[in-house]
Amino acid sequence: MRISLKTIGMSASALALGAAPALAQDASPVSPETQYIFNTLLFLIGGFLVMWMAAGFAMLEAGLVRTKNVSMQCLKNISLYSIAGLMFWITGYNLMYTGVDGGFIGSFGPYSFDPVGGNSLDTGYSTASDWFFQMVFVATAASIVSGTLAERIKLWPFLLFTVILTGFIYPIAGSWQWGGGWLSEAGFSDFAGSTLVHSVGGWAALAGALILGPRAGKYNANGSVTPLPGSSMPLATLGTFILWLGWFGFNGASQLAMGTINDVTDISRIFANTNMAAAAGVVVAVLLTQLMYKKVDVTMALNGALAGLVAITAEPLAPSVLQAVIIGGIGGAIVVFTVPLLDKLKIDDVVGAIPVHLLAGIWGTLIVPLSNADASFATQALGVVAYGAFTFIVSAVLWLVLKAVVGIRVTAEEEAMGLDKVEIGVEAYPEFGQGSQRL
Amino acid sequence: MRISLKTIGMSASALALGAAPALAQDASPVSPETQYIFNTLLFLIGGFLVMWMAAGFAMLEAGLVRTKNVSMQCLKNISLYSIAGLMFWITGYNLMYTGVDGGFIGSFGPYSFDPVGGNSLDTGYSTASDWFFQMVFVATAASIVSGTLAERIKLWPFLLFTVILTGFIYPIAGSWQWGGGWLSEAGFSDFAGSTLVHSVGGWAALAGALILGPRAGKYNANGSVTPLPGSSMPLATLGTFILWLGWFGFNGASQLAMGTINDVTDISRIFANTNMAAAAGVVVAVLLTQLMYKKVDVTMALNGALAGLVAITAEPLAPSVLQAVIIGGIGGAIVVFTVPLLDKLKIDDVVGAIPVHLLAGIWGTLIVPLSNADASFATQALGVVAYGAFTFIVSAVLWLVLKAVVGIRVTAEEEAMGLDKVEIGVEAYPEFGQGSQRL
Amino acid sequence: MRISLKTIGMSASALALGAAPALAQDASPVSPETQYIFNTLLFLIGGFLVMWMAAGFAMLEAGLVRTKNVSMQCLKNISLYSIAGLMFWITGYNLMYTGVDGGFIGSFGPYSFDPVGGNSLDTGYSTASDWFFQMVFVATAASIVSGTLAERIKLWPFLLFTVILTGFIYPIAGSWQWGGGWLSEAGFSDFAGSTLVHSVGGWAALAGALILGPRAGKYNANGSVTPLPGSSMPLATLGTFILWLGWFGFNGASQLAMGTINDVTDISRIFANTNMAAAAGVVVAVLLTQLMYKKVDVTMALNGALAGLVAITAEPLAPSVLQAVIIGGIGGAIVVFTVPLLDKLKIDDVVGAIPVHLLAGIWGTLIVPLSNADASFATQALGVVAYGAFTFIVSAVLWLVLKAVVGIRVTAEEEAMGLDKVEIGVEAYPEFGQGSQRL
Repeated sequence: MRISLKTIGMSASALALGAAPALAQDASPVSPETQYIFNTLLFLIGGFLVMWMAAGFAMLEAGLVRTKNVSMQCLKNISLYSIAGLMFWITGYNLMYTGVDGGFIGSFGPYSFDPVGGNSLDTGYSTASDWFFQMVFVATAASIVSGTLAERIKLWPFLLFTVILTGFIYPIAGSWQWGGGWLSEAGFSDFAGSTLVHSVGGWAALAGALILGPRAGKYNANGSVTPLPGSSMPLATLGTFILWLGWFGFNGASQLAMGTINDVTDISRIFANTNMAAAAGVVVAVLLTQLMYKKVDVTMALNGALAGLVAITAEPLAPSVLQAVIIGGIGGAIVVFTVPLLDKLKIDDVVGAIPVHLLAGIWGTLIVPLSNADASFATQALGVVAYGAFTFIVSAVLWLVLKAVVGIRVTAEEEAMGLDKVEIGVEAYPEFGQGSQRL
Repeated sequence: MRISLKTIGMSASALALGAAPALAQDASPVSPETQYIFNTLLFLIGGFLVMWMAAGFAMLEAGLVRTKNVSMQCLKNISLYSIAGLMFWITGYNLMYTGVDGGFIGSFGPYSFDPVGGNSLDTGYSTASDWFFQMVFVATAASIVSGTLAERIKLWPFLLFTVILTGFIYPIAGSWQWGGGWLSEAGFSDFAGSTLVHSVGGWAALAGALILGPRAGKYNANGSVTPLPGSSMPLATLGTFILWLGWFGFNGASQLAMGTINDVTDISRIFANTNMAAAAGVVVAVLLTQLMYKKVDVTMALNGALAGLVAITAEPLAPSVLQAVIIGGIGGAIVVFTVPLLDKLKIDDVVGAIPVHLLAGIWGTLIVPLSNADASFATQALGVVAYGAFTFIVSAVLWLVLKAVVGIRVTAEEEAMGLDKVEIGVEAYPEFGQGSQRL
Repeated sequence: MRISLKTIGMSASALALGAAPALAQDASPVSPETQYIFNTLLFLIGGFLVMWMAAGFAMLEAGLVRTKNVSMQCLKNISLYSIAGLMFWITGYNLMYTGVDGGFIGSFGPYSFDPVGGNSLDTGYSTASDWFFQMVFVATAASIVSGTLAERIKLWPFLLFTVILTGFIYPIAGSWQWGGGWLSEAGFSDFAGSTLVHSVGGWAALAGALILGPRAGKYNANGSVTPLPGSSMPLATLGTFILWLGWFGFNGASQLAMGTINDVTDISRIFANTNMAAAAGVVVAVLLTQLMYKKVDVTMALNGALAGLVAITAEPLAPSVLQAVIIGGIGGAIVVFTVPLLDKLKIDDVVGAIPVHLLAGIWGTLIVPLSNADASFATQALGVVAYGAFTFIVSAVLWLVLKAVVGIRVTAEEEAMGLDKVEIGVEAYPEFGQGSQRL
């Protein structure tokens, strides 16, 4: 019979120990070997959950682009995840984590796992598990760019940009904080990557959107905006749920250790806070769109969840539940108010990634001192500006070089025809619109 | 080389210990700290698997409603999951688990996690992980209601009902058993929630279906029933697989502890039995529909899996494999026979949630004494009746109040147009039916 | 603040132990009970990840068949997963694992889990968790057959074949190696099943494809091939991502133990190598299709990922990262070159399962000695031939018997109409092609 252990007033430990309740609790609580296993298991579980977010971005973007560009988004997402893995092995990991030592960059060269049997108990976890966990994060940053620039960017320049982003831009920027670089020494705080992952992706996307220009037909000469609704709300919803699920790994496993009761308790708080921030983002977006437009916008609800998740990512541990709700709820509000703002600026962000990942990421980073006394607003702002300036400028230069050398935008005819026919050769729904006689 | 350890006749322990095979096995088997970590990890893994079931319900329902109402189901499902989280924090958890003490209700007030660093080894697990795991269960109950009432209920009354269901009805009812209330003291047995979760959701759905009435065009004056087939079988299939996966967390982690070899062995039995009951539900539904209709009905196969899962949920541990197969297989049969029965009664249950969650839930609850000697048929029946009476009556009153005060059903014109256009403003597949020239 | 533990030069163990850093590391590192829990947990996590692959195959196949056959693929996939579970209980497990003893077959009879409370520490893990993990593997083999034979095979003969494949063919073949049979004694090496699972499924599919014949309209009298594109690229993409995710359980948990730091470190290497092989498969397929066809084929990219995964499955632990990239990349190339080759031979493989699972599986098995000095090319070839001969011949006989007794192919009219209307009675997208007025 399942009854809450708490309710019946017995400890699980006491229950479980059965005949040996007198075991001294202060003797050898968790052996280093057991800790090593728990820590490594955390990276593996967290890693496969964040890997799964690649599918989430693929479905979200497939659902939010028009039918004629869906195969392209599918291809881009599986390709960028693959490229991220290869580049984070070839250059990324060592640039980000090896020999940064308070500076601005790590060292060059591919990453080598420990040989089989060559693990060291001193590390506290398997190095390959750490590599795997860090690798899936860089893929997340690249996914963000993919959504914003959809429906008009050429495939190969996008993939080239992904190579540089995942192999150089993200790792170098990341080294400043998680690699133990200058921002880390300055006291910047970003628990799981509101800035390091989400804003970095968002800045790269913003630079691309500005240089690439909006989709044909989106912004009219008279100042009006033509909505270009996405092809499939259920796929977009599925993608959002996948991302929400993956975020438990993203934030939870960023605790980086599970071998003590303190660590696993912290991870539990992180799970709960992460969930509450997302929930609040949804509810705020639903309420606001009802109030503002007299109808609820399901894409806003989805992006509200994601904005709540991005916002809590900078500090998912320290907030109380109420604080998590407020942080996530304001994230949801940011999306509702800034999506139309971007349209006023004629910045065409197909999936709303800039409001979600960049703006909610900035919000989450700046509000860390609310709950974490070790952080200061000034240092948080310094970090936001540093990451913004570096990522935006380097990305813009790279986009401009790609534009000049190989071109980054398909022709107007190709854009009208759809990227699937032009560059992929496989339509997403080839029987679509052909009527039942064809079937 | 991978060879079954069992086959080669060596224990994994012996293999793994290597140079230290003589370690005394009875000395400090698993320390309380290690148990705490295992128990908490179980809640976290089980919790994210059950959270994932929210996506399963969303996809199942999106696939089983017509195209014009798909965005609405997506929105409802992400909204109800969010509301469930917020309400289970604000009122639910304490109503269900705090101070019930053999009675009928817990205490009012929001739940507070332990502060950072404030864990207690005596509890045996992190309180936040327990909260997270219990929270995702209440969302499941709310998801059930969503499917039954689809395609004609207004958005906001549904969300208001969800607030009351997740914040009050489910937690109060749950307190009777899992909170250590009167039914628990009476000896009622419901391991993971055939009654507490699935039937509660089913009763609330049934009350709503009766008061809301059937969809236009479903039941004809001459007594015939017009099938209104769902929009996407692959999405419904995906949803079913997601639910099946999530159910390993639903039932497995309801063991509530993983820190002893007995507990983890029980969890393994639960995994196997859960899977076998679902498999039997599928096979029975496939065979029966072939025999009865000369064709196999894929939606029956999907609901057969779910009914098998619901049926085994009341007692997934004690049954032998053969018993699990029988329990799940009869669950599948219940769906095949009761879906048409509901149609005869003109109870319009869009996704078949009442047969799956209510009727198979009752079956699973009543059959517990078959394998669990601690349960009696009389007490199981008492629990079924008590939960049914309370949930149905309170839900019916609430639906009637909502009907009187704000109205719960869209107009006939709105129903014909589809809820996506009326209330969401975002169609699920906006390019659908526009022909290839538009693309 | 999240900083790589490696970077800041402190061990997690040291950090975590806090006040007790002097604990002797060589005393009772991980108790047998704790090992038992870790080992069992590995089977449970690996098991649910591989179970999830059933959904991956369902989505992949639903996306790669035409609209008129999508419900059928959904039904087949949930049915075969269910049948696999039942048959692996009734005959499979004991045929594969009990009493093989260097021979060619195990013993007959259903499998019995240990009774509740009847676990034995000596085994090192829960027997039910082992059963669950092995069971999901047989389902994978059956899924492979489903895809190749889609769009023209009758439902019931396919399900009958599945009964024999999962209850007899796969377990008997599997007993030779993982059951400790003659091939295991001969020194054959197949870590997680490139041959035992993927090639076995592929051989069964090939036998079926040859006997069943190609789909109508695929191969023309003049020698040209008419592409019959699949219905939904996003579903196929989703399926691929699901399979990729599940493969971490497939390969990682095939380590079969997680109770020592060596084991969990090996699992980490397996995760990383598995991911890199898939990534390389994608990149190679993308580059090759661009070079060969001037467009990138998204289905080739998806199958490239799967071929990389199949190829690394025979030995995911020993390879260096570079070796994993090469093994997976060549897997991707195999797909690009052999898909058109099969078409030249007029072998109609709807989803490309023969190149992916059979040919990449052979490649992965033969290349094991590159990284694993315990394997020899001759013995690997022996295993490939033995599994191929047995599975192909037995499958072919079975298909021929089914063809003679009940018929295995629908009529030409039924094939043109689509299997969903003929055998399922539920169309996948019933509103498809009806135009917006119907909505």
